[in-house]
Order: sequence, then C-alpha cells, then structure tokens
Amino acid sequence: MKTYLDCIPCMMEQALQTGRIATSDESKIKKLLDAVGDKIKDIPLNNTPPETATFIYQKIKEITGVNDPYKTIKEQNIRQVIELYPYLQELVNKSDDPLLMAIRLAIAGNVIDYGAHRHFHIEDEIEKSIDQDFAVFDYDKFQNDLKKAKAVLYLGDNAGESVFDKLLIETMGKPVTYVVREEPIINDVTMEDAINSGIHEVAEIISSGAYTPAIILKLCTDDFIEKFNEADLVISKGQGNYEGLSEVDRPVFFLLKAKCELIARELKISKGAIVLKAINL
Amino acid sequence: MKTYLDCIPCMMEQALQTGRIATSDESKIKKLLDAVGDKIKDIPLNNTPPETATFIYQKIKEITGVNDPYKTIKEQNIRQVIELYPYLQELVNKSDDPLLMAIRLAIAGNVIDYGAHRHFHIEDEIEKSIDQDFAVFDYDKFQNDLKKAKAVLYLGDNAGESVFDKLLIETMGKPVTYVVREEPIINDVTMEDAINSGIHEVAEIISSGAYTPAIILKLCTDDFIEKFNEADLVISKGQGNYEGLSEVDRPVFFLLKAKCELIARELKISKGAIVLKAINL
Repeated sequence: MKTYLDCIPCMMEQALQTGRIATSDESKIKKLLDAVGDKIKDIPLNNTPPETATFIYQKIKEITGVNDPYKTIKEQNIRQVIELYPYLQELVNKSDDPLLMAIRLAIAGNVIDYGAHRHFHIEDEIEKSIDQDFAVFDYDKFQNDLKKAKAVLYLGDNAGESVFDKLLIETMGKPVTYVVREEPIINDVTMEDAINSGIHEVAEIISSGAYTPAIILKLCTDDFIEKFNEADLVISKGQGNYEGLSEVDRPVFFLLKAKCELIARELKISKGAIVLKAINL
Repeated sequence: MKTYLDCIPCMMEQALQTGRIATSDESKIKKLLDAVGDKIKDIPLNNTPPETATFIYQKIKEITGVNDPYKTIKEQNIRQVIELYPYLQELVNKSDDPLLMAIRLAIAGNVIDYGAHRHFHIEDEIEKSIDQDFAVFDYDKFQNDLKKAKAVLYLGDNAGESVFDKLLIETMGKPVTYVVREEPIINDVTMEDAINSGIHEVAEIISSGAYTPAIILKLCTDDFIEKFNEADLVISKGQGNYEGLSEVDRPVFFLLKAKCELIARELKISKGAIVLKAINL
C-alpha cells in the first residue's frame, strides 16, 4: 500500500504526540517537527506508510535521546490484557466456535495502537468484537489451510495485542513462530514485550530484523525472508503489516481492524470494520 | 495568542484539505505540503496562529493558481443562512431578550469555518445555541457599553456567519462599521461576501487591509488602526480575531465558539463552549 497525501498530516501529528511522550522539552519537539517537515519533500509516495513512518520514529529517538518512548505504556497495556486473560479464555472456551472467537479477540486487540489511531477502550472493543460482522471473511479458507499446515508463522503487531495473539496461538494448537520488531518503534511488539506477554510459553519468538513498524520484506533479514517464503501458513496482524505486505506474492491471512480512512478505502470497507482476508489463495 | 506546537499538524491538515478544494492535481497538493513542511522550521511560535496560517493560504494560491478556493462554498453557506433568516428573525423577535438571542445566533454562525474545525451542521448549531450556557458571559458590561456607544466597529469572521452578524447589527440598532478581510483567505468574509450577505443594507463595510485570517493590527492599514483605536465599542467575532487581538490594550468584546482545544485551553474553558468576553474593562 502506498503512502497517501493524507498520511503526511497524520505523521506530523504522530511526531507531535510521540515527541510529547518522549520529552516535555517543547524546543526538542519543535526541532522534531522541523525535521519531519523538512523531510516531506523527500517522501516518495510509492513508499509504504510504515517506511515513511520509520524516519519519524528514528528522528524521535535521535532528537529526544529516548529509545523506547512507549515502554511504560506498552508494559501497562500488557498488564491490562493479562488481567483480562481468564475472561478472554472463558469467552473462547464457551464459544460454539472457539477458533473464530479467538480470531475475533485477536482483532479486538489490534486497537491498542498509538500510531494512526490513538483512542481506544479495550473492554469496549472486546465486547464489540464478539458479534461484529466481518467486512472481509475468508474463514473457510483459513480453517482449511490451518488444518493442513504443519506450522504457522505469526507476524505480531502491537505489544498489548500480543497477549490476545497468545490466546489465538493456544487455540490454533499448531507449532507457531511469532515475529517481533527488531527495535522499539511506536508501541509495536519487541522481543521483550512478547516475553512479557508470555508468547515464549506458546511459540518460538524471532525478529524480522527490520526497523520498520511493519513487515517490509526488502528491509528484513535473509533468514526471516526465507522463513516467510517457506512457511505453511502466514498470519499477519494489523494495519502496518498489511500496508507492508499487501502486494507480496505468497498466500497470507490478514487479521486487522481498519483504523484509518485510507486503509478502509484501500480494502473497500468502512473505517472500524474488521477483516480476515486471504491473498493469493 | 501564540502558535502552539499542536497548530503545526493542524495547519498541515488545512493545507491538504484546502489544496484538495482548490485542485484535483495530487502533484500540486504534494508540492504544497512540501512547501508547508519546509516552512515549519521558520515558524516563530510567538507568532499568532493566523499569521502562521497566512503563509499556508498564500502558498495554496501560488501553487494551485486558485485565488479563492472557498468561493463556491462561501456562496452556498450565505445562501443557506439567508434562507434561514426569517426563522432567525422570528427567534429574535419572540425572545424575552432579543439582543441576547441575536448574540447567541451570531455565535452559532461562528461554526461555519473551514479552518481549524471543518465539520458542522448549521441547523443543529442554531438549536444548540438557543439555550447553551455561556462559559464566559460579560453581558452586563456589553449592554452597558452598547447603551453608551454612538457607533460600533464590528469585526467580521467567516462568510456564512456574516448573515447572522446582519441580524445582530439590526437588533443592536446602532450605526455599525463592519470589517472584512482585504483578500479571500480560508472562508473568511470579504467585501463581496458581506455584500452577498446584505451587510451593506445595515452597515458601512470596510476592509482591515490585512491579508491574514484575523485582525492582526500590525498588518492592518493605518486608517483601520485609527478606526479601531477610536471606536466607541468593538465587537470581535470568532476564534481567529481572538487569536489576533487577545493582547491589545483597548476594550474589546469577543463573541466566539471555542472550536479547538488550544483556544479552549487559552480561555480556560471547554472545547465547544460559547463566549461573550470583555477585555480591558
């Protein structure tokens, strides 16, 4: 997915909000906005949005000296979802279709995002997700492929969301490799966050090797690209990973909630809609 | 009022939205965002927001070649409010306090704004304004000063709003000089718009001489500044004029609705609140 003109003011807003989380020094934040502003003319609109965002988040680190501005927030999000875990497990166990319920909840967790869409209430989102209609629903294909798959490659997205991912991984009952970001960026899941979420108890955790808030293959390590190409089944969580992977040529199942107008337009659905979408199948 | 860091992403968004109204050529709009981005480092934060916005709207004219992007929209807004005029007159005539009702309606008209706050529904706003509590309410002072004033200098704001201003001017029953922008900027009221609204039937219309979407004295003509300083009573409509005039040293009555968080913070009120505020009295 390419960068839209609308992404530019949004990224300026992200720079401001994240700058404020990283520092209370307004002059540093102004310097950050200056740097982002200066960069706009160099943004190729055929880059994916997460490639463009990477520059901003690197600048935040560089100018504020804070490597992981969302560290505390990510820890809080993970703790909050871990507290809800018994309730989430009960929802899955009591469901007529535990796999589908676990998918629904894993999508609910996708709202814990401090990038494009910053306002959410996780309990409300869980309630909503239980019976929200899917705008794209390739569930038959998913069940079919899951049944045949010996192992699953699961591309994580946000840190708090990874606790929901753990529940889906447990529910699928297949060996899973869980992919995290190489370095902290926005509130995306890193190795440390995934371990805090308990993912290591149910999956092997690896890094994509990329510094982007999404899987963008050309920026990943050869080792990861090999795993991606050879995986029986790939589950890609969230908007950023969709933006990065929507044009790859292997089958991928995307689980996400459309959190901005642009991705909604790209997927021909409404903002707020939920998606289980297969490509190349 | 100074420019806040929050104004920067907002202005980028305004550039995008107005660029889209002016042209459908995405490459021109990108060029506009590039130019605005480049300018950020030169924005002095102690400038008022409308001074900063002026650069953006000048760039829009320069890059798109469109002198008045909101021309059609302003005409539609004026026509819409003129159609409502008999109803508005009735509200005033039937009120226990016609002057206060005319003030309330003149503030309702302040939402017709394509700058900071672009989403509004004018009929809803009228209904709301009829009994909304004022967050600042210097009405006694206003009545008192109006009684003594031989003439009123009335600083217009947006084009559609000027039809509401006409009703307040009629209700006050004093000789009024109505001040418009020198050139089209955002959807602010120009000489042509004020005449379309029928202001010439109830007041003398003059220009401030400034190219800003607000009265900023240092950018106005000497002739206007003299009129401003010598006026018996000054009524200033809207957020932009408040941003430009909040620190002048003569009495001014501000009528506005707080349409963004920053002006709300500045006035120590909530976003959406309505204000009749006197300064230097």
